[in-house]
Amino acid sequence: MYGELAVFSGCANTSLAQEICNYLEVPLQGVTIIDYPNENIFVKLQKSVRGQDVFIIQPMTSPVNRNIMELLIMIDTMKRASAGRITAVMPYYAYARSDKKDQPRVPITARLLADLITVAGANRYMTIDLHAGQIQGFFSIPGDELTAFHILSDYFMRKQIPSATIVSVDLGFAKKARNFAEKLHLPMAFIEKRRVGGGTGVEDLTIIGQVEGRNCILVDDEVDTGGSMTEAVLLVKANGARDIYLSFTHALFSDPAVERLKGLPIKEMVTTNTIYLPPEKRLPNVTVLSVARLLGEVIRRTHLGISVGEWLKDV
Amino acid sequence: MYGELAVFSGCANTSLAQEICNYLEVPLQGVTIIDYPNENIFVKLQKSVRGQDVFIIQPMTSPVNRNIMELLIMIDTMKRASAGRITAVMPYYAYARSDKKDQPRVPITARLLADLITVAGANRYMTIDLHAGQIQGFFSIPGDELTAFHILSDYFMRKQIPSATIVSVDLGFAKKARNFAEKLHLPMAFIEKRRVGGGTGVEDLTIIGQVEGRNCILVDDEVDTGGSMTEAVLLVKANGARDIYLSFTHALFSDPAVERLKGLPIKEMVTTNTIYLPPEKRLPNVTVLSVARLLGEVIRRTHLGISVGEWLKDV
Amino acid sequence: MYGELAVFSGCANTSLAQEICNYLEVPLQGVTIIDYPNENIFVKLQKSVRGQDVFIIQPMTSPVNRNIMELLIMIDTMKRASAGRITAVMPYYAYARSDKKDQPRVPITARLLADLITVAGANRYMTIDLHAGQIQGFFSIPGDELTAFHILSDYFMRKQIPSATIVSVDLGFAKKARNFAEKLHLPMAFIEKRRVGGGTGVEDLTIIGQVEGRNCILVDDEVDTGGSMTEAVLLVKANGARDIYLSFTHALFSDPAVERLKGLPIKEMVTTNTIYLPPEKRLPNVTVLSVARLLGEVIRRTHLGISVGEWLKDV
Amino acid sequence: MYGELAVFSGCANTSLAQEICNYLEVPLQGVTIIDYPNENIFVKLQKSVRGQDVFIIQPMTSPVNRNIMELLIMIDTMKRASAGRITAVMPYYAYARSDKKDQPRVPITARLLADLITVAGANRYMTIDLHAGQIQGFFSIPGDELTAFHILSDYFMRKQIPSATIVSVDLGFAKKARNFAEKLHLPMAFIEKRRVGGGTGVEDLTIIGQVEGRNCILVDDEVDTGGSMTEAVLLVKANGARDIYLSFTHALFSDPAVERLKGLPIKEMVTTNTIYLPPEKRLPNVTVLSVARLLGEVIRRTHLGISVGEWLKDV
Amino acid sequence: MYGELAVFSGCANTSLAQEICNYLEVPLQGVTIIDYPNENIFVKLQKSVRGQDVFIIQPMTSPVNRNIMELLIMIDTMKRASAGRITAVMPYYAYARSDKKDQPRVPITARLLADLITVAGANRYMTIDLHAGQIQGFFSIPGDELTAFHILSDYFMRKQIPSATIVSVDLGFAKKARNFAEKLHLPMAFIEKRRVGGGTGVEDLTIIGQVEGRNCILVDDEVDTGGSMTEAVLLVKANGARDIYLSFTHALFSDPAVERLKGLPIKEMVTTNTIYLPPEKRLPNVTVLSVARLLGEVIRRTHLGISVGEWLKDV
Amino acid sequence: MYGELAVFSGCANTSLAQEICNYLEVPLQGVTIIDYPNENIFVKLQKSVRGQDVFIIQPMTSPVNRNIMELLIMIDTMKRASAGRITAVMPYYAYARSDKKDQPRVPITARLLADLITVAGANRYMTIDLHAGQIQGFFSIPGDELTAFHILSDYFMRKQIPSATIVSVDLGFAKKARNFAEKLHLPMAFIEKRRVGGGTGVEDLTIIGQVEGRNCILVDDEVDTGGSMTEAVLLVKANGARDIYLSFTHALFSDPAVERLKGLPIKEMVTTNTIYLPPEKRLPNVTVLSVARLLGEVIRRTHLGISVGEWLKDV
Repeated sequence: MYGELAVFSGCANTSLAQEICNYLEVPLQGVTIIDYPNENIFVKLQKSVRGQDVFIIQPMTSPVNRNIMELLIMIDTMKRASAGRITAVMPYYAYARSDKKDQPRVPITARLLADLITVAGANRYMTIDLHAGQIQGFFSIPGDELTAFHILSDYFMRKQIPSATIVSVDLGFAKKARNFAEKLHLPMAFIEKRRVGGGTGVEDLTIIGQVEGRNCILVDDEVDTGGSMTEAVLLVKANGARDIYLSFTHALFSDPAVERLKGLPIKEMVTTNTIYLPPEKRLPNVTVLSVARLLGEVIRRTHLGISVGEWLKDV
Repeated sequence: MYGELAVFSGCANTSLAQEICNYLEVPLQGVTIIDYPNENIFVKLQKSVRGQDVFIIQPMTSPVNRNIMELLIMIDTMKRASAGRITAVMPYYAYARSDKKDQPRVPITARLLADLITVAGANRYMTIDLHAGQIQGFFSIPGDELTAFHILSDYFMRKQIPSATIVSVDLGFAKKARNFAEKLHLPMAFIEKRRVGGGTGVEDLTIIGQVEGRNCILVDDEVDTGGSMTEAVLLVKANGARDIYLSFTHALFSDPAVERLKGLPIKEMVTTNTIYLPPEKRLPNVTVLSVARLLGEVIRRTHLGISVGEWLKDV
Repeated sequence: MYGELAVFSGCANTSLAQEICNYLEVPLQGVTIIDYPNENIFVKLQKSVRGQDVFIIQPMTSPVNRNIMELLIMIDTMKRASAGRITAVMPYYAYARSDKKDQPRVPITARLLADLITVAGANRYMTIDLHAGQIQGFFSIPGDELTAFHILSDYFMRKQIPSATIVSVDLGFAKKARNFAEKLHLPMAFIEKRRVGGGTGVEDLTIIGQVEGRNCILVDDEVDTGGSMTEAVLLVKANGARDIYLSFTHALFSDPAVERLKGLPIKEMVTTNTIYLPPEKRLPNVTVLSVARLLGEVIRRTHLGISVGEWLKDV
Repeated sequence: MYGELAVFSGCANTSLAQEICNYLEVPLQGVTIIDYPNENIFVKLQKSVRGQDVFIIQPMTSPVNRNIMELLIMIDTMKRASAGRITAVMPYYAYARSDKKDQPRVPITARLLADLITVAGANRYMTIDLHAGQIQGFFSIPGDELTAFHILSDYFMRKQIPSATIVSVDLGFAKKARNFAEKLHLPMAFIEKRRVGGGTGVEDLTIIGQVEGRNCILVDDEVDTGGSMTEAVLLVKANGARDIYLSFTHALFSDPAVERLKGLPIKEMVTTNTIYLPPEKRLPNVTVLSVARLLGEVIRRTHLGISVGEWLKDV
Repeated sequence: MYGELAVFSGCANTSLAQEICNYLEVPLQGVTIIDYPNENIFVKLQKSVRGQDVFIIQPMTSPVNRNIMELLIMIDTMKRASAGRITAVMPYYAYARSDKKDQPRVPITARLLADLITVAGANRYMTIDLHAGQIQGFFSIPGDELTAFHILSDYFMRKQIPSATIVSVDLGFAKKARNFAEKLHLPMAFIEKRRVGGGTGVEDLTIIGQVEGRNCILVDDEVDTGGSMTEAVLLVKANGARDIYLSFTHALFSDPAVERLKGLPIKEMVTTNTIYLPPEKRLPNVTVLSVARLLGEVIRRTHLGISVGEWLKDV
Repeated sequence: MYGELAVFSGCANTSLAQEICNYLEVPLQGVTIIDYPNENIFVKLQKSVRGQDVFIIQPMTSPVNRNIMELLIMIDTMKRASAGRITAVMPYYAYARSDKKDQPRVPITARLLADLITVAGANRYMTIDLHAGQIQGFFSIPGDELTAFHILSDYFMRKQIPSATIVSVDLGFAKKARNFAEKLHLPMAFIEKRRVGGGTGVEDLTIIGQVEGRNCILVDDEVDTGGSMTEAVLLVKANGARDIYLSFTHALFSDPAVERLKGLPIKEMVTTNTIYLPPEKRLPNVTVLSVARLLGEVIRRTHLGISVGEWLKDV
């Protein structure tokens, strides 16, 4: 239905792109990308993509705004080079917390991004574990939001941690945390954060549910600067938790995340490679699971026009 | 900047529309609406709207699909009658739970609706307490999501219920429930529902947090058929709760909600008039607070081009 | 060029959809459609449609507005499920009389509908005997307006009614009535309706042309409540007509059509199954011809990318 | 609401434009229009139109395609010169008979035109007596289709022609002919044209209704080459008509219309100045009524944002 | 990927279209094009194009505005006839000098044209030697700007003119003239035109660089009325040039170009057949090189989805 | 026509924005801009902009991609905050050399940018001295390209440099260089750069025209890394030029521009403040002329809806 499969990578996570190509047994396509001294990004494809079924792998990670522009420019290049179909594969979608006007006179940047990607010429999108699933609806083009939930939860199932409890670090993640608890047949607890003292910025953390004497698996979608996670770890520890595990899809690890996490009583942090983690950020207790097979298989099925849903059910 | 203010109402909640007009001290504009025997809806404005600043009040309530079509046809009528600006005021936004593809091969109807409203010709939208705030981002036109949070929480503040606890009926509402708890300086509890028995449809409910001996205020965004709410009321009662209060913005009350709620040990249900509640659904323990002043004032400010945000801060 | 052919049906006329599938020798595809207690329509496809060439059969009949929404939601579902091409097959197109502003401040709902269908994601449309052919131009997407003219006129050719006259019931149908007369080599007459008495609503009917002693075939595009048709039948009878036949594509039969038609001196009413006619509306003198072969063959040719026009010439 | 009123004219009918300006008591705005030797049309406005409420008067008449391009270029010029609002005033809309696909593989040029005008940047349109009112629905921008019906029918009312009959020259005009008959309280007759002899191109004309001994007013929307009108005049004459009058909005008079009409037994042809009629085409029995007041008043009301519909009711 | 290749021609240059078809070894597809007496252009395809890969050959040449409309109508026809892909092949793109607002209140007609072509339904465009390459960016659809540079420069390479100099007739063409000089290893000179005498319209021409005793090849993109070229020829001759050659892609030859060029001391004018040159304009010293192979091969590659860029490198 | 004037600034050149506000005698509006640790840019307006006429000053300078995103996010914020009109004021437009596909499989990023700005919600744009004026046509929204030509050339007129020559550093700037020469009544010379040695990357520079013994004013639109300018300065010096002046609008000064320019025999470099030049880049021989009055006055006139063109004529 579409021409040949052609997988390209922006600069954000070429190792993941290569891993996906290995799974698909196709070469990673060549593209020349130059950042000129004036910071303008130049893109040139090394071979024709006329009519081809193009996938561009580009998580929106640091340098975030540069990488977004690179993605947009690559899409434009593909469109004007007459690609048959263009899929923007964004294992990490930035600006996802800017997903509604929760105060006056702020943007909804996550929607803006969807429009930018569409106007640049993408025909489809693919992403993993959006901060809010509703961001799917910011797109009018079709697409797939995949989840690392199975990859992460299977890992914990195999570990067989006794007397464990799932702790939702953020109330906005409560429903997804419940899914972890349900799948692993574990009880839950919640960390509630609220402002106290009327605008003084002081916050108060409470645990709702039981953690004393329990091995705690703290779950969230991402770790950014690690501030909330640090507070959560210290709180559950102070409340008598035994071993502490972290589970999150996106290891954003913005400064000073590594500094913070380094000193904490965490037994293991389990995450994925949606975001490229440079060696200096790979703490010894970090386990990185790969999403390459997940993305690769969905790309393969999208390309062949066969069901993605059927396969996901069985993953 | 725009012409005269002109407020119209579809058939869904004319009493709210009239109340808004009373607040604004403007007449409700005349429109002839006929449902022909072939069910085609005919609309004709009784006066010119050339250049005027038109607001159409139409919550998307029963008959839902008819009322949506009526709204769209009214917008088209206004556009072709050369209105200066058209705002679709939807105090209740239907299909809001269809806001993401949480399983394969389902629609995102809440986004579809946003597109229908926009293509029909609306320039702005206004709504109250969306099931998910992200639905704002389904629109590319500007708009305002208002909230009945202050109306509801102020009511409870004035009641001064002792030894109270906020109970979040649905984990997806946990974050908003926290805002109630924070404002009323009350502790929280959660009801967690999970599937057990592997696809047999059996569900298990747990309370996380303390309710024994507490007066419980169960909070959610809407009550539809009342199923979850009924389970929640029975569960907190069984766990030793004292008085039970309900607080929710949208009294959808689809069958058999009234039947269910009638027999429950609920001291008071506090809701709003975003949805027209016919007399037979007004149970004696229902308190309906009006959103007319909220909508009216925001319409007034939108029309005059003065800050909405400033006013909302002070409500 | 496109993937496999996949025919779906909304709830409006599944028996026609099944007949079309029989002609095409393909199964009617499975789709779960639920009307929730809150009247929100839920749609879920039972199998993948990735890349497939999807046709959705849905005449816009009672409940009209619900069925329109259902069609739109099904289109959105197909789009987000990555269908290769989506054709909205609407054997009956509602709101077709709202096709121009013939008075100030009314909508053009037929155009609005075309926009709704397009924004939902349809790539093509297919319909039969639009009230005005110009509605084709309301769409910017390609499509086919088919006609039951050959099916109906061939039927009358085979009947060989002697001394017959074609009577155009509505002046807006005069040109199409002429085509019947031309094909059957019969003379014509017209019924002219005009308002008399200045706004009192009184109307005066006249026959222009000869009907006395003639067998009359009254032609129109649809019978809605049957009001005009009843007047026409009585008028031609009063003017000395012999046997009276009716020919119309769409048997809308809104109340009180069946009541009215039941008592009239009509020898035979010839219509089609564009609209599902429940048993209680099938009067003994109604003959229903099927459009399934017409739609089926055009779907087949559209799918295969071969000429529709060539075949229609020879039907 | 909009800036100053500014009326411009393309080259098609500057005398009508000037007449409209006289009615409005505003100057016709200056614009330099040059047809270069390479036939490229150059447009330059002589004064700023920033924020102004611009009306461009341009019937789509000979040279048709050049004048369409001129209109589009003028619209683009206005848009890029930051006009506040742009209304394309097209007293005659060309290509209006290309309004549906009545055979396979033909265009719908009337819709194409609407899209061209819109994409060029027009915010509104205004036109008179479209060949089919549905063409209104080809536009998604608002607009006004006006009619010369009142101007023409009032003229005949004042003439008080005894024993008159309205004759519809084309069955597609039957419904509008009825409106003439209704207003003037006159009987009707129809001319029916049908193909005979199976594709030999031979056509047969019949009169349905009485014309013998009657003064006949032949009505249609336009006279193009005058072929149908000539046949009609000869037919009614041959059937015993007395005086013959013609009434039509648009005097297109393409060759050889003037030659044909010159020799016919027509007492008076009544038309309007939607199309500029050069002296050599002004036969002595042609009466040209002006639409300048009609257009002028609607422009004035559109500009001021006051009701057009109210005024039209009273014209 | 797309259906069969189908090449159509508008009326502007059927001989080029036929030549392209000969190269491609496909028949030129049949289309009926009629200019009615009212100048409306009627188009009807003689065969189905469902799903086909359609190329329409139509340089925008005299009659320019008619030919543009014809192209747009053909595109609309193809779209509504369900062509699989539509490429507008415009070997000459008119209005290309209207490519920016270099003074207030003028249009950018070259952009307008791109929008017209796109809204009509073209999926791709193809053109040769745009007056400014940036016009590519006026399109959001993909396309190919080809160049006759290699055809023209190869011709001069084979001629081996001794002691030659490339003369850029217009400073806006300086960069492209440099490419000629670079490829032919020849020195350059420039003709500079400037206004003198403050708005009196008097212009002054200067040669910058050496032409005395040199054979001069005057290069430009097109010759329109031949005014600038005539001045240039006379100037270089007056400055001691020996033989004079002209090289330009587009022989527009608007009046009075032929008159002007006829009398000049030009040894040879080398141009192409992007524009059809009627016999009376083929001066004896004009050499017309064909672009049919260039267009044909690019059409072939576009159709097959194989690289155009690779081939162009080797032409 | 629009609400109050409101001028905002992104982070790229706040001193220019302040200078513009000083000219306009309005305050620079407050906006909170935060770069979070995850590099996501957060924007919040400090006051309501409902209905206001908003201008956002943001040249696309270093950090280029961040500043582009910031501009887009600010536009989205304004749109969703219901600004009446949004003008993106970009005194420097980045990616302007990516304005056409001059080789296969490259983007047209300058067009992409125009689409991004438009889809984000800008209603107008304003810019200065685009690399190619045609970029205006990349926008479908109206806008103004202003020029610093008068500011720069007036400066040189006042200097009265004797025996001067205008040297065009790049052939693509030849036409604009001619305008300098014409206004200052000076002769011209050109620097021609061509590749030699077949792909070895070796380039050869030639001067065409006279520079010996002349004071040379080298003109171009911008100085990026200064490479071409350095070569040009050395070449004219080597050819006997006396004093050397540089004139260019945009002082991009990417590394190693300052290093390069520092050591060259340049008497004076004259440029503008479209781009903020930090103190360390302000070489002693740099003269920075301000565009604040130019932008300020055009903003004022755009806001008031009065002619910009009239004023520019007289600047």
